[in-house]
Amino acid sequence: MDYLQRAKKILQRIDELAAISENDGFITRTYGTPAFLSARNKIAQWMKETGLSSRVDNIGNIRGKLLSNNPAAKTFVIASHIDTVINAGKFDGPLGVLAGLDLLKNLIQLKTKLPFHIELIGFSDEEGCRFHSTYLGSKAVAGCFDDHLLQLKDESGQELAAVIEANGGHIAELTSDAIPKDEWLGYYEIHIEQGPVLYEKNIPVAVVTGIAGQYRAGIIFNGENGHAGTVPMTMRKDGLACAAEFVLAVEKLAQQYNDVVATVGKLHIIHPASNVIPGEVIVSLDLRSDNEELLLSSYESIKKITAEICQKRNCVLEWNLIQYNKPVICDTNLSRMLVESINKSGHELVTLVSGAGHDAVTISTVAPVSMLFVKCFKGISHNPLENVEPEDIAVAIEVSDNFIHELIKTNNL
Amino acid sequence: MDYLQRAKKILQRIDELAAISENDGFITRTYGTPAFLSARNKIAQWMKETGLSSRVDNIGNIRGKLLSNNPAAKTFVIASHIDTVINAGKFDGPLGVLAGLDLLKNLIQLKTKLPFHIELIGFSDEEGCRFHSTYLGSKAVAGCFDDHLLQLKDESGQELAAVIEANGGHIAELTSDAIPKDEWLGYYEIHIEQGPVLYEKNIPVAVVTGIAGQYRAGIIFNGENGHAGTVPMTMRKDGLACAAEFVLAVEKLAQQYNDVVATVGKLHIIHPASNVIPGEVIVSLDLRSDNEELLLSSYESIKKITAEICQKRNCVLEWNLIQYNKPVICDTNLSRMLVESINKSGHELVTLVSGAGHDAVTISTVAPVSMLFVKCFKGISHNPLENVEPEDIAVAIEVSDNFIHELIKTNNL
Repeated sequence: MDYLQRAKKILQRIDELAAISENDGFITRTYGTPAFLSARNKIAQWMKETGLSSRVDNIGNIRGKLLSNNPAAKTFVIASHIDTVINAGKFDGPLGVLAGLDLLKNLIQLKTKLPFHIELIGFSDEEGCRFHSTYLGSKAVAGCFDDHLLQLKDESGQELAAVIEANGGHIAELTSDAIPKDEWLGYYEIHIEQGPVLYEKNIPVAVVTGIAGQYRAGIIFNGENGHAGTVPMTMRKDGLACAAEFVLAVEKLAQQYNDVVATVGKLHIIHPASNVIPGEVIVSLDLRSDNEELLLSSYESIKKITAEICQKRNCVLEWNLIQYNKPVICDTNLSRMLVESINKSGHELVTLVSGAGHDAVTISTVAPVSMLFVKCFKGISHNPLENVEPEDIAVAIEVSDNFIHELIKTNNL
Repeated sequence: MDYLQRAKKILQRIDELAAISENDGFITRTYGTPAFLSARNKIAQWMKETGLSSRVDNIGNIRGKLLSNNPAAKTFVIASHIDTVINAGKFDGPLGVLAGLDLLKNLIQLKTKLPFHIELIGFSDEEGCRFHSTYLGSKAVAGCFDDHLLQLKDESGQELAAVIEANGGHIAELTSDAIPKDEWLGYYEIHIEQGPVLYEKNIPVAVVTGIAGQYRAGIIFNGENGHAGTVPMTMRKDGLACAAEFVLAVEKLAQQYNDVVATVGKLHIIHPASNVIPGEVIVSLDLRSDNEELLLSSYESIKKITAEICQKRNCVLEWNLIQYNKPVICDTNLSRMLVESINKSGHELVTLVSGAGHDAVTISTVAPVSMLFVKCFKGISHNPLENVEPEDIAVAIEVSDNFIHELIKTNNL
């Protein structure tokens, strides 16, 4: 079967999964819901049809393992996630799992002798929409699942622990699902880019060199409410004017560097009215870079500039760091093999930093990670308009096939 | 009785009115409610005690008239409003009505011979909170009440027409309450400044030279949503960055002129999220000046600058004019007499433009208008923290007493 035919088969399965949703009319499959379980059963069935025995682990990941006869075999994981955001697109997650299944099917059909085990994993929770969590599935596999997470509650008040048990998992056995650090050979994930670069360049795939580190902060500008008609411009303490300077300063700073992006996605005026000078204004900051030093210095710069803006405008600044994630560097060896596969395919080589987070962030704490991005329509993701062309999936399969075979060859030496 | 004693009596009555509210714990007396009717009864009683016969007109204004024997007498109106905003201060409105009552009491006690009638009016609806209206009370008195207003509905679905009738008014007789244009001598209102200028200068009163004209507009910036981590800075169409430039451009333009104020009081991102580049952003513009030409040119400048911002940022601009009110110029003769009264009182002369609207806006269409502002604490208004010192009320009474006597003298000539 040629690559395009294999891509079309993958697409057909992606469509079948997309039809399984918590809602009519749009795709929502958050962790542990009946729709989620039903989609996971479907994947288990496809694994079986492929000749791959599968199991569901305690956190709810679906895992199929292709075993090597090598007594010293380590495990190479191919994975992505099967949960979705609310009103999702159909490619974010499923593409990586179903392309992975296709890669394994090919190895099974070719009766390829494996020097390492290959485990295909459909992670149960990457988006974290139900419990406002991150990477529950891969945390269990990486062995860094923190038991405090079990107390997380969803909107209806259900605890994660209860959901795990209700779905057949056992919280006491979560740790047994981890792949021990010394047994990892590496990790590979195929994912849509979720950004516009490949689409704009019209290139099917890219090697991911790293996953950006991220600062998230919540910032409050405390000015003073006043009557829009009666307070002279010189006597104002306008919280929104502060926030506006902040928005433009954040943008200007990020524009100075190729490898920094910064976004103010939220801006909320407390008690807004068209005839009232804004007093208290709350904004969000999202700052990302794969360059740790630059990320740190950019964050400190923005903080300093913001303090100056507030001082100049007689407003009081409140700065709350919400989250910091270090950048993840993809493994040089695995990425080099991916580069070679792309070169072999004849497509132009593009390397990208992932601005979005992925399960590789968690796995990178225990194993060398690698990722391949696939072009998506206009870079649109987390949206029903998410789309990927079969031709681009075909290239992803070709590149991944060669990559896996190269990895096998290297490990057979 | 000296001016400070008179001021303290006024304050005592202001406190009594403040105790009559729709709610426990804060002051709310919107048009036509039981609390409103009860407060109006209280004022009618005080008018009676003062020796002033009063009547309630069809729209619900309370009106007490001190008659002249002059067969050619015109009417001079002293007024303010008795309705309040929700969670109001106690001075906005009542101060003008109760100071007016004190002025009339003084004329009655002195048995002053009047060359013109003086009518004291407590307007029933200036704030417009219940029916989202403006100046219902003074519109009826000025003879410019539009019958379409009768169909306005409050939150509970009650029509204004029904509320008027239920409270004893007759909508068919509304026009009979107007003072015909040729019978007006003039209009005078004492009101708190609702701005910080007198407080900052520590001056008790100011002559109002005009009421600012106002543009209100609603503006939509249509950018494009995108993932905060994956869309490079150079590929963004950030609606919030557009809005931020707009906020600062509006501020900068107003800062160029002494007699322009401009405010962006609302800024709303559609579907905000910290990790999403804002697409659609809606903002409000409130632009005011007493200089009609400057108001017009400032508005056009802002519109032009905003179009340039959007073009530069590849965002689509939607501009909706919501309201335009021409500036009102207070009467030169009346204002000159007020200036002379202030000079006579020995206090520094301050002239102010009112940035807030008042019933004088409506009355100015039929009569010469004049206003005196009184210093209020930090310029705070529409807020329980609204406060006025008795000493400043005393100055307002002194200045107004002299003003009325000068007006009487002038008209006796």
